[in-house]
Amino acid sequence: MKRKSFRAMECPIALALDRVGEWWSMLIVREAIHGATRFDQFQKALGIAPNMLTRRLEALVESGIFERRQYSEHPPRHEYVLTERGKDLWPVIVSLMVWGNKHFAPKGEVVLLADVATGKLADPKLVDSLTGTEVTSERFALAPGPKAGPRAKAKYGGALAGSSRRARPSPPGQPS
Amino acid sequence: MKRKSFRAMECPIALALDRVGEWWSMLIVREAIHGATRFDQFQKALGIAPNMLTRRLEALVESGIFERRQYSEHPPRHEYVLTERGKDLWPVIVSLMVWGNKHFAPKGEVVLLADVATGKLADPKLVDSLTGTEVTSERFALAPGPKAGPRAKAKYGGALAGSSRRARPSPPGQPS
Repeated sequence: MKRKSFRAMECPIALALDRVGEWWSMLIVREAIHGATRFDQFQKALGIAPNMLTRRLEALVESGIFERRQYSEHPPRHEYVLTERGKDLWPVIVSLMVWGNKHFAPKGEVVLLADVATGKLADPKLVDSLTGTEVTSERFALAPGPKAGPRAKAKYGGALAGSSRRARPSPPGQPS
Repeated sequence: MKRKSFRAMECPIALALDRVGEWWSMLIVREAIHGATRFDQFQKALGIAPNMLTRRLEALVESGIFERRQYSEHPPRHEYVLTERGKDLWPVIVSLMVWGNKHFAPKGEVVLLADVATGKLADPKLVDSLTGTEVTSERFALAPGPKAGPRAKAKYGGALAGSSRRARPSPPGQPS
């Protein structure tokens, strides 16, 4: 099933999902951050069908998340190396882990995060680095950026200085 | 196309993606955090086909991310309200926004994050709240949690205290 592309949307969340909004992609990146570079390493770690893995790696290379590099000439062998763009997905993966642990690990965590410099378990939280405040959905909201058009300004303008609270979307029409 | 379920996996990232690893789900949650509760609000904001939206909302209710509530008896009308589990997806959505802005908004940001208490733009970063250190993939790694079995321990044990660096996955076999 071919899905609708999100590329025509302006929203950075939609643009991001257009590149990684496929179930396997984030797990492939997870394995790569953990050190996997070769096709069989990804395949073995994920139990993914080879044709599916081939397709996902091609899409991830096309999106600039992995770089395909030849590491042997005879025989020809390639490996898949995360780019900076790929490594920058780490906060998304860790945020998914935090959510998964909180809601789907009732008997305790199988996987956590550790600081490799100290070997201690970490407690990852998203904060506003300007103030140190934790980024909750009550305190923070999406807001128009410098390149926002009229639509994004109307939709997200409520969160900016001068308005008391973020705007609600359009009034009810015909609900389900 | 029915995909493979990740529910049998132990990894919290896989368990999380099993619930929200569909392109539309995160955008539906984004709209809900922005205030949408009614079918037509989601539909209008996202331009999603009604049958697809019905399916995604049903799946999100089944996963405990939304609660379906009747708000009118005559005529019967329902709205979709984010649960705590749904609101807890906010850091994932913001992390996707940060990544999308960095890599797919070359002319400037259309959407950013603002602190609604001050109306100021925010700079969201994932940090280890125990030390304040930013959670980069160089400094932090996945590690076995209290419920890790032998497989997770072998795979992720390298990041914990006592080992100098995280373990690499299995040696190369038959690459692509």
